Amino acid sequence: METPMPLTPATGAFEARLRAILPAAAFRDYTDHYRLEPRGSYRGADALLVAPADTGQVAAVVRACHEARVGVVPFGGGTGLVGGQLMQGGPPPVILSLERMAAIRALHPAEDVLVAEAGAILADVQAAAARAGRLFPLGLASEGSCRIGGNLATNAGGVNVLRYGNARALCLGLEAVLPDGSIWHGLTRLRKDNTGYDLRDLLIGAEGTLGVITAASLRLFPRPASETAALLAVASPQAALDLLGLASETLGGSVSAFELMHRNGMVFLAETMPEVRLPLDPAPEWSVLVDVGAAAGLDLDAALEHFMEAGVERGLILDGVLAQNAAHRAAFWTMRETIPEANRRIGSVSSHDISVPLGALPEFIARADAAVTALGPFRINCFGHVGDGNLHYNVFPPQGASAAAFAAQRKPVKMAVHDLVHALGGSVSAEHGIGRLKVDDLERYADPARLAAMRAIKAALDQHGIMNPGAVLRAG
Amino acid sequence: METPMPLTPATGAFEARLRAILPAAAFRDYTDHYRLEPRGSYRGADALLVAPADTGQVAAVVRACHEARVGVVPFGGGTGLVGGQLMQGGPPPVILSLERMAAIRALHPAEDVLVAEAGAILADVQAAAARAGRLFPLGLASEGSCRIGGNLATNAGGVNVLRYGNARALCLGLEAVLPDGSIWHGLTRLRKDNTGYDLRDLLIGAEGTLGVITAASLRLFPRPASETAALLAVASPQAALDLLGLASETLGGSVSAFELMHRNGMVFLAETMPEVRLPLDPAPEWSVLVDVGAAAGLDLDAALEHFMEAGVERGLILDGVLAQNAAHRAAFWTMRETIPEANRRIGSVSSHDISVPLGALPEFIARADAAVTALGPFRINCFGHVGDGNLHYNVFPPQGASAAAFAAQRKPVKMAVHDLVHALGGSVSAEHGIGRLKVDDLERYADPARLAAMRAIKAALDQHGIMNPGAVLRAG
Repeated sequence: METPMPLTPATGAFEARLRAILPAAAFRDYTDHYRLEPRGSYRGADALLVAPADTGQVAAVVRACHEARVGVVPFGGGTGLVGGQLMQGGPPPVILSLERMAAIRALHPAEDVLVAEAGAILADVQAAAARAGRLFPLGLASEGSCRIGGNLATNAGGVNVLRYGNARALCLGLEAVLPDGSIWHGLTRLRKDNTGYDLRDLLIGAEGTLGVITAASLRLFPRPASETAALLAVASPQAALDLLGLASETLGGSVSAFELMHRNGMVFLAETMPEVRLPLDPAPEWSVLVDVGAAAGLDLDAALEHFMEAGVERGLILDGVLAQNAAHRAAFWTMRETIPEANRRIGSVSSHDISVPLGALPEFIARADAAVTALGPFRINCFGHVGDGNLHYNVFPPQGASAAAFAAQRKPVKMAVHDLVHALGGSVSAEHGIGRLKVDDLERYADPARLAAMRAIKAALDQHGIMNPGAVLRAG
Repeated sequence: METPMPLTPATGAFEARLRAILPAAAFRDYTDHYRLEPRGSYRGADALLVAPADTGQVAAVVRACHEARVGVVPFGGGTGLVGGQLMQGGPPPVILSLERMAAIRALHPAEDVLVAEAGAILADVQAAAARAGRLFPLGLASEGSCRIGGNLATNAGGVNVLRYGNARALCLGLEAVLPDGSIWHGLTRLRKDNTGYDLRDLLIGAEGTLGVITAASLRLFPRPASETAALLAVASPQAALDLLGLASETLGGSVSAFELMHRNGMVFLAETMPEVRLPLDPAPEWSVLVDVGAAAGLDLDAALEHFMEAGVERGLILDGVLAQNAAHRAAFWTMRETIPEANRRIGSVSSHDISVPLGALPEFIARADAAVTALGPFRINCFGHVGDGNLHYNVFPPQGASAAAFAAQRKPVKMAVHDLVHALGGSVSAEHGIGRLKVDDLERYADPARLAAMRAIKAALDQHGIMNPGAVLRAG
């Protein structure tokens, strides 16, 4: 594998060439919307912003970049948390925004399939499915602004992975422009297709480094006929895990979400947003939000009652509230979904999006708490998708202090958490991806044979290293 | 991409080299078990059979083959139907049988994870899960002899894909030997891990052309607390499809299987195996086998009753039998699972493992029937996993005639069926893979950009083209 030549800046002659092949409407101002990292940590360096109107224009841009060796950074909703959509330096790239390709191309309710362009906002995809009486179950805090192409490029997770899988599991087919500008027409609606290598799952999660997703055929589901939720106090993470086992036994596939929350989440909400209602007051040290939904023929209330009774009997549920109606259930979720905003207002020293094998969750929490508090007087807000073994393990300054005062501890805290995750067979990026911020982590923790295979695949599909340079893999 | 040099035969000096690095027990006789295509269509050419005892030995074999440019054909249970496990010519390869690596390495019931070596027989994996009170839902006719490594390499499907997904969806992590002999230690038990390219899903379904799977961590599920089944007569494929929609609405994720059968399956059973009981007699033109299972808290009988009532009310169910007990349910399944053997005894002119978008199933069946019967006096047995849009559309001689008499029609029949499948956006290999028998089909029907990407990936990971030469992609 030879090192690719340095990339050409998307300025001067190259910019003129693009302006000659694309209509004027494709060129947009490179404003802060595109330039700012969503947590405000830094600004992207100079770039040329283009927003093609169709797949043919995307292919024309990529082909030109391939020929001239210009970097291409695909841009969805700009909500990624690992810098995959932003370059902080290097020869100015083309930022290729999918925002003008936001159509729902087709809807097949009887097949439970929807075909969306990459720039469709996630909430719009959900709404289109809902209008057809169907459910598109991908759901995340940023669903009002993130775009489905970005969700797929980063294999987004969210709260319903337990039941419906992550973005990869929700995608049947892709249309994509490959790094040489060729178009892969792969918008299949098939549930089974064993004809060769799984290029779909390779592009999903590749964060735009192997091509640009331009459209996707997505799996829909029947909307549950009945839905409800319970907010339950549990004694410990181990009790939460045992309760998850009980839920799986008694409720089976009806469990849509199983979220663990530490008391500090509620403490932070009370500190920063006292208007948000806390359904369990005083907040227990650990609580679990269980969300369930079932088809018309199944009696969900009876099943949930059965689960709650067994949970109390086994000593797993200490206290709890069952949602009395849809508004009550929504209040549980508002609390859960507002925790990230409370975290943002407090300001973290270091945030970690980790996963470990389910059985190792209690050990992880105990050992990470010990390791982190040994490094300073930190407050830890640990919450997440316990059904997926996925925790957002975030470290904050003590009350009244600012994160800036602990800047020097940021790296030791992160290393302590990540090293422990790795020792337990876990992942240092469960949901968010590698982007540019976790490239070092990938190099530190990835299996060497796999990393070598990744580099070989990248070099084979993107000979000039133009696609999202420096994301996932260090630029050559 | 340069054409790789011709491969070296696994004889003489190379065989001596392998005998020097592997214990004598690794060398086995190359008997008919390995040499015969399962439908008896042909015999494999000469080869050197080795059966390593552990992953280190697999790596040593592959490394030696990589260095000496000797072909490696991974061999599981030998049940594949597209010749992926057999070379009919060329320089004798090493056939690498995983039969001695059949251990269940670990079982984590509370995590719903089992770690098996690639040579474990599928039925043994199912049994190990069952002993721990769990379900491994992959199920196929050959489960008593196929091996999990082969199931993964071919992304096997079967009857429970509708509910649990195909082999790919059931795998959390892999250990594999890559084409250069390096070992990828990827036996993760994580449900979420977004750290780089999805090498797992790339190896799954690559049919041994990108490496040898040596072990896998697999997803388990709670065993349904109650299970039952119904055998229902329906008026047409469209009625079957509408009934599937109703099942999805009323039974949701409780539907484990939804199998469509044409009357000819029962006719063939009566002709060749009159001892097999036909629960609906006389056999209806079209029938559907619905299998359901639910967790402890859910009342399955009530739900199924609700479904059946609605199905009759809407005119979708013409007649039906509800399983009265486990033995009755098993009899339904025996009938369904014996159809392939009846087909074998009749002897097909041409068999097709196809999928189309769900909504196109009725059109496919009508047009394929017309096209095939225009070519000769054929009998068609169309059955399959209608919930996945996957049909086994098999063409037979008229009663009393032999398939041999119609040998000349084999190709036109296949082309007529495959061209129609392709025109409807379907797949010419839904479950069985490409192997060596469908390489032409892949070249004919695959998207050119995707095919080019596949070739680039193959060349990047397997520079010398040693891994399963000529399978999936034509040898260089």
